[in-house]
Amino acid sequence: MHREDGLVRLRALGFRDADAELLWQHFDDAERRGKPSHGHARIDWLATQSFDAQARPKQIDDGRWDGNGAVGYLVLARVCHALIASPPRDARLVVCERTFPTGMLGHHVRRLAEAGLIGVLTATSPPRLGPPGGPKVAGTNPLAVGIPSSDGEPVVVDVSMGAVTWGDVVAGLASEDELVPFGGEQWHKALALALGLQLLVDSLVTQPGHGAVLLVARPHADPVAALRATGIRLPGARQRKNVPK
Amino acid sequence: MHREDGLVRLRALGFRDADAELLWQHFDDAERRGKPSHGHARIDWLATQSFDAQARPKQIDDGRWDGNGAVGYLVLARVCHALIASPPRDARLVVCERTFPTGMLGHHVRRLAEAGLIGVLTATSPPRLGPPGGPKVAGTNPLAVGIPSSDGEPVVVDVSMGAVTWGDVVAGLASEDELVPFGGEQWHKALALALGLQLLVDSLVTQPGHGAVLLVARPHADPVAALRATGIRLPGARQRKNVPK
Repeated sequence: MHREDGLVRLRALGFRDADAELLWQHFDDAERRGKPSHGHARIDWLATQSFDAQARPKQIDDGRWDGNGAVGYLVLARVCHALIASPPRDARLVVCERTFPTGMLGHHVRRLAEAGLIGVLTATSPPRLGPPGGPKVAGTNPLAVGIPSSDGEPVVVDVSMGAVTWGDVVAGLASEDELVPFGGEQWHKALALALGLQLLVDSLVTQPGHGAVLLVARPHADPVAALRATGIRLPGARQRKNVPK
Repeated sequence: MHREDGLVRLRALGFRDADAELLWQHFDDAERRGKPSHGHARIDWLATQSFDAQARPKQIDDGRWDGNGAVGYLVLARVCHALIASPPRDARLVVCERTFPTGMLGHHVRRLAEAGLIGVLTATSPPRLGPPGGPKVAGTNPLAVGIPSSDGEPVVVDVSMGAVTWGDVVAGLASEDELVPFGGEQWHKALALALGLQLLVDSLVTQPGHGAVLLVARPHADPVAALRATGIRLPGARQRKNVPK
């Protein structure tokens, strides 16, 4: 999909120009990073979701925002924008209530890392993971970590606790049966992480609904270059796909 | 091992009575929770480590401690004690420099959760994980999450990114070849988490050496009971082993 097509479709969903631009950047970044299940296809999917395209996320205080009916992508975009404009002195925990869907979490922490801030982000989603044969009790609840680096490219970790993504299921690339905790025989580890992250969010919010929790901090050291020198491929450094502009 | 035997051995390593008691509680908790690689056997192992049994961890400010030569177990015990005595108004990030070894991280967040505080804890350790055939670049770097519950028992997640523990290797229960990122075919997910958590710690410390990072927060909601009602076994609720007192 070309940029102009994407923006036209997003504006047709009722988004303001600036918000349509933010959403396009998110979907196009996912497409270019080889995560099409978070990419352009999500524009048509958004039309099936319940949200108020004109809603503005509300900041309650330094450590709490309320999505206020806006799509989660835009809530996290606004939260990151505010943190970059006015970073904490050391570190801050930000609880984002009623914040869903939030997309590819690595996109948000990458923005923070490119602005020199460490970010750790998780978000809840509908329960799709459980023990074999048991009830579905946890979302795929990814954990994303963004680390700035003086050598330019940040490290961006973004790990979902599912063996496949819900987007893959929606796109017909995987069956719902394949959406289990990753880990093979050690599935209990990924399920435990998904449950821990979910309870973290659910114990910090004051209102029902899916939410996100973001830790942001200023770095005191610069460890990425030494790790890169080992020669391993660092998370988030995947070669970008060539997608038409 | 009986309690009195354990305390005698710990005091023989030079620890004060109160510190020997804290260490015994940690090792005995691990033993009773079915994690013998973090249990009584660690007392003899401690004798092989480099530390100053009489050192006292130093608090630099609200968000930073320095192990100051003390064993990591005792640093985290002191940090948790201080946070329970004087909890943050909302949330606080605590960076623990020169803090190693830290043991079973779930033990520390369980103490916080039993005192009504949410805890999220990670810690670095010597590099033992890497891509297949590649260099060892990451510690097993566990992530522990403790969530208090009004129904009494907290949920305690404690997940190492290795398929087996280093303790299992030391004890001859697993070979060093088996110490790979967990996940089977999806080993890259556990390695990415290990690298992300390691860089988080390494970018927050000001001194070289292994360290720990702890997020502590007051809960605003009480989600555990509803999750327990689904009937699944919650992390950290494993039946305790019957170990002689």
